Amino acid sequence: MIEKTFDVEEVLELLEQKKFNELKKYLERINGADFPSIFEAVKDEDMIVIFRLLNKEEAAEIFAELDSDMQERLINSFTDKELKYVIDNLFMDDTVDMIEEMPSNVVKRILKNVSEQDRKVINEILNYPDDSAGSIMTTEFVDLKENMTVDDAFKKIKKIGLKKETVYNCFVLDVNRKLLGVLDLKDLLVAERDEKITDLMDENVVTVTTLDDKEDVANTLAKYDYVALPVVDKENRLVGIVTVDDAIDVMQDEVSEDFEIMAAITPNEDGYYKTSVLQHAKNRIVWLLFLMVSSIVTGAVITHYETAFAALPILVSFIPMIMGTGGNCGSQSSTLVIRGLAVDEIKPKDFFKVWWKEIRVALIVGVIMAVVNCLRIVIQYKDLQLGIVVGLTLIIAIALAKSIGCLLPLVCKKLKLDPAIMAAPLISTLLDTCSCLIFFNVAVIIMGL
Amino acid sequence: MIEKTFDVEEVLELLEQKKFNELKKYLERINGADFPSIFEAVKDEDMIVIFRLLNKEEAAEIFAELDSDMQERLINSFTDKELKYVIDNLFMDDTVDMIEEMPSNVVKRILKNVSEQDRKVINEILNYPDDSAGSIMTTEFVDLKENMTVDDAFKKIKKIGLKKETVYNCFVLDVNRKLLGVLDLKDLLVAERDEKITDLMDENVVTVTTLDDKEDVANTLAKYDYVALPVVDKENRLVGIVTVDDAIDVMQDEVSEDFEIMAAITPNEDGYYKTSVLQHAKNRIVWLLFLMVSSIVTGAVITHYETAFAALPILVSFIPMIMGTGGNCGSQSSTLVIRGLAVDEIKPKDFFKVWWKEIRVALIVGVIMAVVNCLRIVIQYKDLQLGIVVGLTLIIAIALAKSIGCLLPLVCKKLKLDPAIMAAPLISTLLDTCSCLIFFNVAVIIMGL
Repeated sequence: MIEKTFDVEEVLELLEQKKFNELKKYLERINGADFPSIFEAVKDEDMIVIFRLLNKEEAAEIFAELDSDMQERLINSFTDKELKYVIDNLFMDDTVDMIEEMPSNVVKRILKNVSEQDRKVINEILNYPDDSAGSIMTTEFVDLKENMTVDDAFKKIKKIGLKKETVYNCFVLDVNRKLLGVLDLKDLLVAERDEKITDLMDENVVTVTTLDDKEDVANTLAKYDYVALPVVDKENRLVGIVTVDDAIDVMQDEVSEDFEIMAAITPNEDGYYKTSVLQHAKNRIVWLLFLMVSSIVTGAVITHYETAFAALPILVSFIPMIMGTGGNCGSQSSTLVIRGLAVDEIKPKDFFKVWWKEIRVALIVGVIMAVVNCLRIVIQYKDLQLGIVVGLTLIIAIALAKSIGCLLPLVCKKLKLDPAIMAAPLISTLLDTCSCLIFFNVAVIIMGL
Repeated sequence: MIEKTFDVEEVLELLEQKKFNELKKYLERINGADFPSIFEAVKDEDMIVIFRLLNKEEAAEIFAELDSDMQERLINSFTDKELKYVIDNLFMDDTVDMIEEMPSNVVKRILKNVSEQDRKVINEILNYPDDSAGSIMTTEFVDLKENMTVDDAFKKIKKIGLKKETVYNCFVLDVNRKLLGVLDLKDLLVAERDEKITDLMDENVVTVTTLDDKEDVANTLAKYDYVALPVVDKENRLVGIVTVDDAIDVMQDEVSEDFEIMAAITPNEDGYYKTSVLQHAKNRIVWLLFLMVSSIVTGAVITHYETAFAALPILVSFIPMIMGTGGNCGSQSSTLVIRGLAVDEIKPKDFFKVWWKEIRVALIVGVIMAVVNCLRIVIQYKDLQLGIVVGLTLIIAIALAKSIGCLLPLVCKKLKLDPAIMAAPLISTLLDTCSCLIFFNVAVIIMGL
């Protein structure tokens, strides 16, 4: 079991009994990341009580962990002095994250309480596109000058270190703030005090630019096992860093977004509970209506072959199985390709390579499905011709399903659309029409209906 | 664009022209994480040439980044001395990862070349279950004694630091190796040299045990923004740490696994290309056959109502739309719940809370879908009764779909099954039967067929 370091009940009890000294001591033992669940459990007026009991040094950190609702409620209880203290001690990227979620009156109050210079930086970050590296970077990092020694570096880290989100990677800049190299704190530690940092630094730095897609940034950081990835502007000047914890958040958000898109839901940044019933309905109805239109086409195809199933009503009972198998085969292929693209294993240009793999898989799967179904039909209905019709339909439909399933996400990627839209719902609705067409055509040709 | 620090063509050219000195210099400028793509591009016999040109210090690190195929090919070209050197310089968890993938003759050769003590540790880690914290932890970390000062700590880090996978977090142990607290390197840096580390350390350590599920471990690390999470045994003795880079790998693997399960594919650890066509077919056919059986049931339901659609053939054309909508609504709900469970927003006990949200969403979505379809049918077929049948079916089917869709993943979680199996393919196949039953029953009752 993962160890719990606190008990919410205990906090509530101490609050109720107004044993604030004991509560203060109890709170000190709680990990910052656990405070959201405590604030969630207490009443609004108790939030500020708890907050005022916190160690000043930790208060800002804990504040940053809260979700925007709780932050807003706390800010409304803050004095201006408290607000200024918290914001001064927040990392710049956390301040910006917070501002993005606040109503305008709160934003005004926050901006009133920051320095001129901070206000400039905040406005700059707010202007980066939502999905860019610039929007998730922090502008606080350890920058070292190229003529420094290890000793100078330590002095600088000591001076500015604690305010920085990460000091594990230090960045060596030239006079124009262009990035020359990166220094791991580990390497600094084992070096002699008078060594030049330019002799120690690693010049093979992988950088991203402010406008790079934040998903690519997170993947790059993961690939190179960085704790912090430098972000440069167009002139290769260092403007910020993306730290591993923010990269993990991006990864988790992107996966949630992919899950939603793949289930025909308009993606939504808020969590499940925080999204209102009406918003949930809105996020889902658009795709449902769109897919409905597509399945009406399938209905029309079926109507078109009314004479066929009027002559042989048993045909209708195979529609769910044939449509289902086609859809499932297609979404198997599309999901593998979507994931392959996301983790950078499959490239958009791999068109033929992927198709060649899928078509062989389709053949094996198709023949097995065909044989199993043909046997069942012969045994159950004693009708070999019907067995052949269903079997042949499955082979053709599966080959088509796997081809379309693997190609459409690649086409999407080429067109700079999100390949995830080509997952189960859309693919299987498209394939429903195809499978029905194949089925009735095969039936008409072989059985002469 | 993300900056590239090398060009494979350049490497191939230098290899061909046998300009090894130039190549050596060129290789020095390449980031370790980029070597897999270089090794992929060169011929087998050139791999060892490149490897021998690498800096000795970097060679082991680069070796660890290669996939197991390449590692095996390299080991086969290694002298015993080279093999020993590489293994001595690998982190223990990388060595174990490698051994797990090697054929037995290579494993024997590796174990012959490690020390008695390392052999013991390797065997211990190999014995942890595949999905446990123990299997992904590294046994190399900075352990400090409780009576040390900051100065002692630095000396110890300097002595053992470079061999350790991470020195950013140091762990303070008592004489029984029980974990007392964690020290951030940053805090050590800004402290006075003669301070006691027990005064500086953070005692609120979140730990995991060797047998905890590795997915929970990765989520815990992400939640607390740790760079390394301590792993303790049953007696709370520190036995290893899980570092953030390994946690990210676990997260990515788990997401890939979820994607596969959610697309009705038996999950597979190898990548898309590395999996053979036959294995791909095997991974997919099992679920396809299972889902086929389920859709045959739907077919039987349809056959049962043969008289209904014989009397009114147009009914058949609504089957794709009604089945499709039911399936899509169900998978929307199940996907949101699966993801909510994965990111720990939704708890298995939230049964009623989730259902209450979903049933309200279902009502809104259902009424809209019903009205749109009813209108279309009245306009197209001038048949209000048919419009009411389809509309009513949609409202009931959507309510049922969203209820089943949100409840089944929660039930799975309670039963300790993977909730991801309750995604689109299974849910929508189950709901196909339900939707058809609802449709024909409503039709029979209202139209008296």
